[in-house]
Amino acid sequence: MGEWQLIERHFRDLGASRDDVTLGIGDDAALLRVPDGAELVLTTDALIEGAHFLPGAHAKSLGHRALAVNLSDIAAMGASPSWALLSLNLPAANDTWLRDFAIGFGALAHQHEVALVGGNLTRGALSITVELAGLVPAGEALRRGGAHEGDLLYVSGSIGDAATSLTLAGDQRSDSDDGRFLRHRFEYPTPRVALGQALRGVASACIDVSDGLYADAQRLLEASGCGAELQIESLPVSAPLQRVVGALAWQAALRGGEDYELCFAAPAQFAQRVDELAVRTGQPITAIGIVRGAPGITLKSENKVMQFSASGFDHFRD
Amino acid sequence: MGEWQLIERHFRDLGASRDDVTLGIGDDAALLRVPDGAELVLTTDALIEGAHFLPGAHAKSLGHRALAVNLSDIAAMGASPSWALLSLNLPAANDTWLRDFAIGFGALAHQHEVALVGGNLTRGALSITVELAGLVPAGEALRRGGAHEGDLLYVSGSIGDAATSLTLAGDQRSDSDDGRFLRHRFEYPTPRVALGQALRGVASACIDVSDGLYADAQRLLEASGCGAELQIESLPVSAPLQRVVGALAWQAALRGGEDYELCFAAPAQFAQRVDELAVRTGQPITAIGIVRGAPGITLKSENKVMQFSASGFDHFRD
Repeated sequence: MGEWQLIERHFRDLGASRDDVTLGIGDDAALLRVPDGAELVLTTDALIEGAHFLPGAHAKSLGHRALAVNLSDIAAMGASPSWALLSLNLPAANDTWLRDFAIGFGALAHQHEVALVGGNLTRGALSITVELAGLVPAGEALRRGGAHEGDLLYVSGSIGDAATSLTLAGDQRSDSDDGRFLRHRFEYPTPRVALGQALRGVASACIDVSDGLYADAQRLLEASGCGAELQIESLPVSAPLQRVVGALAWQAALRGGEDYELCFAAPAQFAQRVDELAVRTGQPITAIGIVRGAPGITLKSENKVMQFSASGFDHFRD
Repeated sequence: MGEWQLIERHFRDLGASRDDVTLGIGDDAALLRVPDGAELVLTTDALIEGAHFLPGAHAKSLGHRALAVNLSDIAAMGASPSWALLSLNLPAANDTWLRDFAIGFGALAHQHEVALVGGNLTRGALSITVELAGLVPAGEALRRGGAHEGDLLYVSGSIGDAATSLTLAGDQRSDSDDGRFLRHRFEYPTPRVALGQALRGVASACIDVSDGLYADAQRLLEASGCGAELQIESLPVSAPLQRVVGALAWQAALRGGEDYELCFAAPAQFAQRVDELAVRTGQPITAIGIVRGAPGITLKSENKVMQFSASGFDHFRD
C-alpha cells in the first residue's frame, strides 16, 4: 500500500468530527472556523525514538502520548483543544503498528473532541510530531508569568510516577502492581484539560509539568519574576511511588518528568475556590508551597532548609 | 548550551513580528488573533534525512525548504501565511548548523511576514517538521475539487528542474551553469504565495506541485471528478532542463517532484484574467491542457496520444 492508502485506511476518520472544520484531511491544507471572541492557541510537541521512548514501545501508548503531551500544553493555557495535525515518520509501513497507534491516538482525540485535520507520513527513523490548536476566550488564557508574592503554589495529581517507572526496567518490581501503576502513568498520561479550563480566572500563572516539577515550577517562577518556598512533606506522592522509592520519594517527585500534571499559582484568598474546583473536576490538587519575592526555590522539611539539585530534563545539556 | 539556550539564541527573534501574535515563543503554547471573517488554514510538512535530503545537505537550504514546502501548501489554498511552529530533531547541538538553518528559514519567513511562534528541539535523527497557519477570507479558499469540463489547466513557472538536479549528482554537468540552476531550483524553491492569493475568484481548483505534475494534476482532477487532455509541447520546460535532458525533457517535467509550482484549473472565459495576473504577479503561467469529463489524463503530441507512466513520489510504495 502507498502513503495515500495508509492515510486513508488509518487516519481519515480518526478523531472527533467537529462542526467548525470546513475542510479536513485530503487537500493541501485544512480550513477551520475560529469563533468571534476566541483566541487561537497553537502548540507542537514530538516523541522521538531514543529520546522520549525506547525501541519496541507499544504503538497504542505512543499514539496516546503523542496527543496527550500536546493536550497538556493546551490545558496549561486554560484552553479547549480543537484540531490536530500529525506528522509520522516510520521506518516501514507496518499495518498492525499503524492500527494500534490509531487506537491510542483516536480514543484520546474522541475523549477531548479533537479532530485530526491533516498530516503526513514519511519513511524514516521513528518519530511522531503532533501540532494541536485550541481555543480560549480572548484575554483569558493562563500564562506562566502572572504569579505574585504570597500566592499559593499548587500541583495536580501525583508526581514522579512516570519517570520512576523508567528506572525499574529489568527490575522485578516492574512486574508488581506498583510497577504496573507507575508504568501506566508513563504510557498513558492524563492531560488535565478540564482542570486547566476551570483555572481561568482563578490561577495567576500555570505551566504543565513535563520536564519535572522542580524545573517547571522554576520556569513559572522565573517568568513571574518570583521565587518560592516548597514544603517537601506537601509534595503529592502516590502510594505506589512511596512503596517503591521509600525515603527518596520526594526527590523522585521533584526531579520526575513526563508527569503532565499542572503546576499553578493562585492568590491565597482563592484557596477555597481551588479546593472546590478540585472536587468539581474530580482532580486532586495539592498546595505545595508559597510564592516569595526573592528568586529561587527554597525546599523546607519540618522548617529545615534542604539541599537539592535538579536540572530537569534537557535534550542538549551534557 | 542546553535546549533553552539554543532556542533563545537562534529562534527567539526568527521570522517576522506580527501584531496579531498575543504571545509567541516562551510559554506552553502561542496565543494568536484570527480576524473576524477569516478562516484559519493549517498545514504541516516535514523534511526527513534520507527521504527528502541527503546527509550533508546545506543547513541554509534546509531552513529555506522546510518553510517553503509549507508556504506552498498555503499558497495552493489561496491564503496568506501567518504563524509557524518548528520541530527540529538534531543528532547534536551544532551552533554553526543552527545559525545557517536559521538564516535560510528566517529570510523566507520575513519575506512572507511569517512569525515563528513556537516549536521544540530534540536530539535525534535529523528531521525538520514545520506547521504553518494562514488566513483566508471565509469561503474563498481554493480547493482541489472544483474543476469542470472545459476549464483550462495551467501550471506556474517551470517544472522538472528540481528532480532532475538530483539525477546529476556525481555528473560533471552538475557543476555547469545549467546544473547550478537546476540545483538552486531544488535547494531554494519559490513558493507561489502571491499567485495563489491572486487566483481567488479565478481558479476553479488548485494544488501545489510537490510530487510531480502528472501525479498532482491527477489528484486535482480526481478530486474534481474529471480528467484532462495535456499537450506535451505546452509543458513549461526551462532552457537549462531542455539542454541537460534533451528530448526527454517532457518526461522529466511530468514526473518531476519538488517543484512547488501551482497547478490550477480556470474557466476558459477567464483566460485573459489569468494572463493579466501572470503579468501582475510577475509569475509565468502556462496553459498545458483542457479539463475533460472522462477520468484519466490523456497526453497528446501533435495530435497523437502518447504513452506515459508516472506514479509520482510516494514514500510507502515499493
